[in-house]
Amino acid sequence: MQRSLARLGDPLDTIATPALVIDLDAMECNLGAMAVFARSHNVRLRPHAKMHKSAAIAKAQIAAGAVGVCVQKLSEAEVLADAGIADIFISNEVIDAAKLTRVAALAGRITLAIAVDSILGVDRLAEACKAVGGAPNVFVEIDVGQGRCGVSPAAAGALAHHVVSRGLRFAGLQAYQGGAQHLRGAAEREAAARSVATLVREAQKSITSAGIACPLVTGGGTGTFVFEATSGVCGELQVGSYLFMDCEYADIEPAEQAPRFEHALFVKSQVMSRSASHVVVDAGLKAYAIDSGLPRVRGRELEMVNYGDEHGILKPSGSGSAADLPLLGETVWLVPGHCDPTVNLHDVYVAVRGGLERGVVEALWPVDTRGCLI
Amino acid sequence: MQRSLARLGDPLDTIATPALVIDLDAMECNLGAMAVFARSHNVRLRPHAKMHKSAAIAKAQIAAGAVGVCVQKLSEAEVLADAGIADIFISNEVIDAAKLTRVAALAGRITLAIAVDSILGVDRLAEACKAVGGAPNVFVEIDVGQGRCGVSPAAAGALAHHVVSRGLRFAGLQAYQGGAQHLRGAAEREAAARSVATLVREAQKSITSAGIACPLVTGGGTGTFVFEATSGVCGELQVGSYLFMDCEYADIEPAEQAPRFEHALFVKSQVMSRSASHVVVDAGLKAYAIDSGLPRVRGRELEMVNYGDEHGILKPSGSGSAADLPLLGETVWLVPGHCDPTVNLHDVYVAVRGGLERGVVEALWPVDTRGCLI
Repeated sequence: MQRSLARLGDPLDTIATPALVIDLDAMECNLGAMAVFARSHNVRLRPHAKMHKSAAIAKAQIAAGAVGVCVQKLSEAEVLADAGIADIFISNEVIDAAKLTRVAALAGRITLAIAVDSILGVDRLAEACKAVGGAPNVFVEIDVGQGRCGVSPAAAGALAHHVVSRGLRFAGLQAYQGGAQHLRGAAEREAAARSVATLVREAQKSITSAGIACPLVTGGGTGTFVFEATSGVCGELQVGSYLFMDCEYADIEPAEQAPRFEHALFVKSQVMSRSASHVVVDAGLKAYAIDSGLPRVRGRELEMVNYGDEHGILKPSGSGSAADLPLLGETVWLVPGHCDPTVNLHDVYVAVRGGLERGVVEALWPVDTRGCLI
Repeated sequence: MQRSLARLGDPLDTIATPALVIDLDAMECNLGAMAVFARSHNVRLRPHAKMHKSAAIAKAQIAAGAVGVCVQKLSEAEVLADAGIADIFISNEVIDAAKLTRVAALAGRITLAIAVDSILGVDRLAEACKAVGGAPNVFVEIDVGQGRCGVSPAAAGALAHHVVSRGLRFAGLQAYQGGAQHLRGAAEREAAARSVATLVREAQKSITSAGIACPLVTGGGTGTFVFEATSGVCGELQVGSYLFMDCEYADIEPAEQAPRFEHALFVKSQVMSRSASHVVVDAGLKAYAIDSGLPRVRGRELEMVNYGDEHGILKPSGSGSAADLPLLGETVWLVPGHCDPTVNLHDVYVAVRGGLERGVVEALWPVDTRGCLI
């Protein structure tokens, strides 16, 4: 673990680089806008904590009206539960018997839900609950077009029946279409969400045909939440990235009815080397994820043209010229391409109040579930 | 921080997934082969700890003959120094005055070296050393073709002169050509290394013309070390990836005279979902880096065709068929595309003795400098 990045009350220029910085004003606007949207559309809000990995932020979301949070991994749930989050949905399958014993134990401590998509997964979960106690809410995941996890909608009834027959509590359907979130056109995403709703209805029919009630459908992301909230089937939104935004989401055409979210997450970097043609900042692959493109530079005519594990190479972009290159030691604010895996690289958030021009450090929040892989 | 991954003495199948696993037998062969190579070629070996980020591994390298290690970041040096590593080269520029004060302080505790490529960097380092004490070895970095950091070879003499004039100890040249490491053909890499040597000679001439001795040239990587070791100018090798290997390095044509290194680093994953056409393992972007391609699957006719933050989607490859897909709960061993940023995602190494078929857990090593970005 490295030394401290900043002290409370410090001005921006004293934050050591590279650092993961939250613009609190922007984040709180985003947080509030989504809470209002969910309330006004009468859907539950369960933001995805796989994105921010922070108990402090999860608490702020819950204080604003969220019913709890989602995570993807058991160990994330355990850490957030230890930090006081009392309602968590592991929106993902767990198949390992030793882990399922921990799932059952955790379900004895907090309100816990988990997704299943196999007979084996249900059987092992039931055995663990029998052995340890604990009664998690069980969501059957259906594949609504992503081609990843989940059973087919037609098979949902049989699996729900198996859940119930093993003495577990069937809580509804997990229906997330990851592939729809970044479709550029709003109409394309709307069509994808309509297709999700059709598949969900098919699954619901299969479940009611099995004589089982389907209490809730949970799903949706930052790209499709507007359409999911009005689809008539989705009762709970799992949005994550709205809180920070990233270049990937900024690049899609917003839905007309969507709140406007602003970038609230940045990597503060510093020019450490400078030539006549380019500058090098002290933030590379280990400070930001590049799976969805290189970071962009905030407020300057600069473009990242290459990177290394610990370096980012910037050149003038657009109408910029070499004369505009920042000086040695100057700060460069990077906007990550993809927030989730960028956050997962850092141990601490430096939360800044008052914007990125004249703000001060208001809080240092640990990235509590960073590295929680199991 | 998540719960424990494994216990000492445990068999492989009890290691929780996803986990970063070292095949110790393979790693020790690689470690020994490079030590023998360096000794027999009469060059110093200073492996790059930016790759493994582990004090335990650094100590094993030093025990086998390395003079010390390299790092890229001040905080890496501080953490490794605290763990008992007494000779460290920060093979990178540091420009921030507060950090340079820490560099100077650290140089009072251990044998420390650092790279410079600017007047400002030298001036700030000199001021810090004057204020705090501490006398680091200072290497002038030259750009030997990568187009990243470093002054031109012709400018090396002037900067070396400035180092000396500010009362600092000039130790030689940092000459690393990152762009040459992954050129596919051995002849291409040999040509690139020859070009490095030509530029180094030009820089040496510029330095001796300034009346200054150039004690050492340090550089080279896993792709070029054979050629650098025999270039006649390079006195110290900074190889890193040889220890673990990854797909990126396995794909280059090995130099004739190079030892054969084996994959020693794996991500253990588990099938968590299965359909007729594919399986999903529980390891995604947060468990391996994808900047140099998706991980490959060890010992099976499977190919990763897509990924998510927490998922990897595998389909049959080559002559494999859907009938060969692994079962729910089965282990799948992934070989990372790029070891450095993969290691940086994990908190712990699970070090296994006896191979990946019947081995047992021999050690759990923290990834000490994981997240040491500043």
